[in-house]
Amino acid sequence: MENTHVNFEDNYSTHISQQFNDELEQIRTQLLTMGGIVERQVNDAVEALLTGDADLAEKSRRTDQQTNDMELLIDEQCTTIIARRQPAASDLRLITAISKAVSDLERIGDEASRICRHAIDLADDGNGQRGYQEVRHIGNLVREMVKDVLTAFARSDTELAYRVAKQDKAVDQEYRTAMRSLITYMMEDPRAISSSLNVIWVLRSLERIGDHACNMAEHLVYLVSGQDVRHASLKEMKEAAQQGEG
Amino acid sequence: MENTHVNFEDNYSTHISQQFNDELEQIRTQLLTMGGIVERQVNDAVEALLTGDADLAEKSRRTDQQTNDMELLIDEQCTTIIARRQPAASDLRLITAISKAVSDLERIGDEASRICRHAIDLADDGNGQRGYQEVRHIGNLVREMVKDVLTAFARSDTELAYRVAKQDKAVDQEYRTAMRSLITYMMEDPRAISSSLNVIWVLRSLERIGDHACNMAEHLVYLVSGQDVRHASLKEMKEAAQQGEG
Repeated sequence: MENTHVNFEDNYSTHISQQFNDELEQIRTQLLTMGGIVERQVNDAVEALLTGDADLAEKSRRTDQQTNDMELLIDEQCTTIIARRQPAASDLRLITAISKAVSDLERIGDEASRICRHAIDLADDGNGQRGYQEVRHIGNLVREMVKDVLTAFARSDTELAYRVAKQDKAVDQEYRTAMRSLITYMMEDPRAISSSLNVIWVLRSLERIGDHACNMAEHLVYLVSGQDVRHASLKEMKEAAQQGEG
Repeated sequence: MENTHVNFEDNYSTHISQQFNDELEQIRTQLLTMGGIVERQVNDAVEALLTGDADLAEKSRRTDQQTNDMELLIDEQCTTIIARRQPAASDLRLITAISKAVSDLERIGDEASRICRHAIDLADDGNGQRGYQEVRHIGNLVREMVKDVLTAFARSDTELAYRVAKQDKAVDQEYRTAMRSLITYMMEDPRAISSSLNVIWVLRSLERIGDHACNMAEHLVYLVSGQDVRHASLKEMKEAAQQGEG
């Protein structure tokens, strides 16, 4: 790990109670575990769609219950720690940021489920659908965002979090282009309206996954720097991210 | 106010510190103030769309900054109270529930903004568009949900919160019917694809507003009953809501 990264252990070391350290470490680990599951959900959803694999889509949808349960579990642990440990400053920020990140992860899982539903609808139409190239491309971009933001959480890497937020702008741009092209296609071939709409919903879900990854990046910058960068410009976020690393 | 309602003041009265009571009362008031602004945003967005009033849509979009600012302010106050007062049990639940409700309110404001953007796009096409009847109907349903869930928060009325969650099922049903009818229409008249898609996005935003109002209802049931009813069935929510009022 590069030494520009602020590690959570730096915070932990100031605690007298080893048990408190363990509790904080535990919720962080659970966030990352949940993140790993959600990351796979997104990957499977996109793969199921592109390969027309309805079984994979079904299987992936079933893991949604697991992420829902994890959300409740982690949230409950956050509340318990606040009530028992009465954390302040950076510990409280860690708990707040994790609680918010978990909520975004759960919503990413929801969007992955929606993609699976459309994958099942589209599976009968065979692969090679119009718009699939765009799904693959935008899918790759947001999968990278989800992976990166989890790595950023694992390493308290605000620089990487900033790059995730920046990537979100690129995704929005690609999304708008893909939408325009699909609308043109629907006008040219009205028989394709129904299946094209399925692809449009998938693109919309991918774009939303990007938004949630971006939210998570903002929560991490808040955790490390103490600055709330929601609704801030990219430039303001960059400054906060650099401060956090200083 | 009916006597089945548990009032926040009942909790407050157990605090020795009057100032702590005031702080909790203040964030509750701010949630309701923000709720009032967001409620008007949703009303204006739907009205602007249905009447083709691009000016109203522009004006309404500009209030989004205000709700963003309020989200950050209330969240900061929640964190400060946790750090200074070290609340436990029902006080901590109040803060947690408000913090989550504020996040849903902000997202409702975002969806209202999206509706305004489509209202501006559609204003040139004149009113009386295909699908507008459905927008009016579903719009009325979700406006009622937002109003009711805020009243539920004001009165700690879990029974009303349950009715909001129940209403969400009706909205989902109406949404699916409206979507099917619009897709049929697009197939019949491909020239209407572009404007119909705008209406489809509006319906989607309304359906999401319903989801967020439903989330808020769940947060209130958690606040009052201590039971986390996210991802629970309507029946489980009803039981928790009744317990909360017992």
